[in-house]
Amino acid sequence: MAESNQEAPFACEGLDRVFHEKARLGIMISLAGHADGLVFSDLKSTCGLTHGNLNRHLQVLEEAGYIRIEKGYEGRRPYTQVRLSAKGRTRFSDYLAVLEQVLRKARARTRINGSTRVAARQSG
Amino acid sequence: MAESNQEAPFACEGLDRVFHEKARLGIMISLAGHADGLVFSDLKSTCGLTHGNLNRHLQVLEEAGYIRIEKGYEGRRPYTQVRLSAKGRTRFSDYLAVLEQVLRKARARTRINGSTRVAARQSG
Repeated sequence: MAESNQEAPFACEGLDRVFHEKARLGIMISLAGHADGLVFSDLKSTCGLTHGNLNRHLQVLEEAGYIRIEKGYEGRRPYTQVRLSAKGRTRFSDYLAVLEQVLRKARARTRINGSTRVAARQSG
Repeated sequence: MAESNQEAPFACEGLDRVFHEKARLGIMISLAGHADGLVFSDLKSTCGLTHGNLNRHLQVLEEAGYIRIEKGYEGRRPYTQVRLSAKGRTRFSDYLAVLEQVLRKARARTRINGSTRVAARQSG
């Protein structure tokens, strides 16, 4: 899905819904800085999510193939390690590029409008 | 709601859900460039939305007080004019500022991780 759409220039189609949900956006940003991943409890606290909410969003990301979840034991303590997959890293980078374009477009439009309003006020 | 949260740095709390939904983001960007607003049919085509979808999203924006919808007649033809409210313009600008911060953070994290991976590969 291309971001630029000549017929519908403000369709924002290229924004992958899996990443665009703000809790998942936080999870992705958090994981992006950790090549070796993060344990569930650390991810929960850095993203300010409840246990249930984090679980739900991780499931969406895992089903899309964007993260890998590894469960194991450290001694007798169970742990859950979450990390980005190569696909997740690439697609997230694509998403950020589209988001940058959208933001640039939005900034240009808010500026254009600002000057139009000033001009209208001065001539009126 | 502040975007920066010391305890949960990746919470993305400041991203107003009303704007963050991608169809509504497109509607807002589209309206931002038109001080006098847009008629329903133009908004529908620039945003690539169906009649029903556009109606539903406009309702959300109107309930939040971010847009004003004016219905009238031009001769015998009915029209629906949609424009940003002053509140909508201000809040959208705030939203864009938060989004910019989030994007900067994401870019910094993806870069950090990139170099960590390279360093790990070189030393391993």
